[in-house]
Amino acid sequence: MKLVPLFDRVVLKQLVAEETTASGIVLPGQAKEKPSQAEVVAVGPGGVVDGKEIKMQVKVGDKVIYSKYAGTEVELDKEEYIVVKQNDILAVIE
Amino acid sequence: MKLVPLFDRVVLKQLVAEETTASGIVLPGQAKEKPSQAEVVAVGPGGVVDGKEIKMQVKVGDKVIYSKYAGTEVELDKEEYIVVKQNDILAVIE
Amino acid sequence: MKLVPLFDRVVLKQLVAEETTASGIVLPGQAKEKPSQAEVVAVGPGGVVDGKEIKMQVKVGDKVIYSKYAGTEVELDKEEYIVVKQNDILAVIE
Amino acid sequence: MKLVPLFDRVVLKQLVAEETTASGIVLPGQAKEKPSQAEVVAVGPGGVVDGKEIKMQVKVGDKVIYSKYAGTEVELDKEEYIVVKQNDILAVIE
Amino acid sequence: MKLVPLFDRVVLKQLVAEETTASGIVLPGQAKEKPSQAEVVAVGPGGVVDGKEIKMQVKVGDKVIYSKYAGTEVELDKEEYIVVKQNDILAVIE
Amino acid sequence: MKLVPLFDRVVLKQLVAEETTASGIVLPGQAKEKPSQAEVVAVGPGGVVDGKEIKMQVKVGDKVIYSKYAGTEVELDKEEYIVVKQNDILAVIE
Amino acid sequence: MKLVPLFDRVVLKQLVAEETTASGIVLPGQAKEKPSQAEVVAVGPGGVVDGKEIKMQVKVGDKVIYSKYAGTEVELDKEEYIVVKQNDILAVIE
Repeated sequence: MKLVPLFDRVVLKQLVAEETTASGIVLPGQAKEKPSQAEVVAVGPGGVVDGKEIKMQVKVGDKVIYSKYAGTEVELDKEEYIVVKQNDILAVIE
Repeated sequence: MKLVPLFDRVVLKQLVAEETTASGIVLPGQAKEKPSQAEVVAVGPGGVVDGKEIKMQVKVGDKVIYSKYAGTEVELDKEEYIVVKQNDILAVIE
Repeated sequence: MKLVPLFDRVVLKQLVAEETTASGIVLPGQAKEKPSQAEVVAVGPGGVVDGKEIKMQVKVGDKVIYSKYAGTEVELDKEEYIVVKQNDILAVIE
Repeated sequence: MKLVPLFDRVVLKQLVAEETTASGIVLPGQAKEKPSQAEVVAVGPGGVVDGKEIKMQVKVGDKVIYSKYAGTEVELDKEEYIVVKQNDILAVIE
Repeated sequence: MKLVPLFDRVVLKQLVAEETTASGIVLPGQAKEKPSQAEVVAVGPGGVVDGKEIKMQVKVGDKVIYSKYAGTEVELDKEEYIVVKQNDILAVIE
Repeated sequence: MKLVPLFDRVVLKQLVAEETTASGIVLPGQAKEKPSQAEVVAVGPGGVVDGKEIKMQVKVGDKVIYSKYAGTEVELDKEEYIVVKQNDILAVIE
Repeated sequence: MKLVPLFDRVVLKQLVAEETTASGIVLPGQAKEKPSQAEVVAVGPGGVVDGKEIKMQVKVGDKVIYSKYAGTEVELDKEEYIVVKQNDILAVIE
């Protein structure tokens, strides 16, 4: 099963941020405030949304920063995804 | 009796999510937070909505994810439906 | 006396939902949460509303589902009506 | 002195609703929740409002239902009026 | 010194409403809820506002009713004025 | 160092309002509610803002009244400025 | 790794404001209310955003004042950035 987003929506998979404290202890990302880095796993077709032509600028595999308060969490086959509108993606990480 | 949605509205029937705990007990979906997976049971004709031409992208039988906070619950012949605007459908599950 | 709605407005008369409990007792609809099924009793002429051409899709006699939080209750000759914009009608019941 | 409304505004004079209880006592309308029936006493010229051409559909003398929460109360020569936009008039009573 | 309003703004000078009680005592208007009658003292040039051509309909000397909750109070040379957008003027008093 | 505003923004320097009480004591303006008179110190280039062509109507040196609740306070070289959109300027004082 | 902003977004790096009190003690900027001066480190391509052509006016290296309540804080490689829409940049400091 896979998610096929409509219009200008993008399916993201959050990246787990591992982090090491000064004393060297690794803190798994889940224990922290939810990070906003994610990988693009599916991209909608774009097209006319609210009467405006939207071209999709991101592609599957892109690592992106998205707005923390945007998007909807979705669970499919025990995996968690976030579905956002492309406009809620702030920047691509290169 | 059946629901014939107007404009860009879509009638959904929620899918019951069954789930098994680690110990093997099956929890029927209703006891959990309302899932947002649903099956499309009727699709409006689209057309000009708020002065913008809208084409319908989903079809009867599609399994979809819709925005948890969108839509209106409707009861007809003891069955519960959700009527959403197509734009509140985030993705199709394939 | 009758109500002649302006623009894209529609006058509805709520349908009283009778219901039978498991033990066979009939509960008149008024005692329940207000249902959102109604019959169309008058339809505005449509035309240009907020600069957008609106065509009326419902007709007198249609049974419809309307958004619970929409519309204005109006009393005329001891009868109660709801005046909604056509866009607040979710679906026609056939 | 008279009120000459600008643009798509309409000056209304509220109708006093008299009502008889089952026992025959007449209750003057003022003691009740403010009714929303009114008579049109002046109609603006319409024209371009917010960049959109608006044609006036009501005329002086029309009895109308208007949205309870719309409009501004105005007092002139000890008389009370309500100034509404035409779009806040729901229906004409015929 | 004088106020020259920009765009579709209008400078108003509130009219003091004197009032006589049943017993004949004159109550100066300032002690009452702020009235919304005013005289136009300056009119902006109109023109394109938010991409829409606006023509000015009121002129200096007009007595007008304006929306109680609109406008900004301004003090100049110990005199108080209200600056409103023309659209907040409900009607001219003739 | 100087502030060069973008688009339809205008940099203002608030005017200090000195005031004399009836008994002749001078109260420096800062102790009072913040006045809304200001001098224009820099004007953006205008141009297309939100898809609409905006022409700048004020110029450096103009004394203006601006909306009390608009704008952002900015400190540069120990001086305080207010950056507003031109549309938040109500009137020029001549 | 670097941030490549989409559309009309701009990546900023906040400038640390050092300040000396009257008695000569240096207060590092971080202890103060967050300043809104920043340096532009990356600029999106502009283009059609919400159906409107947007041209980018700022360039990498510009020192700018941005709206305190705008933007999203982003951490990358232990560095903190702010991603804003170009329209939230009030002025360039020259």
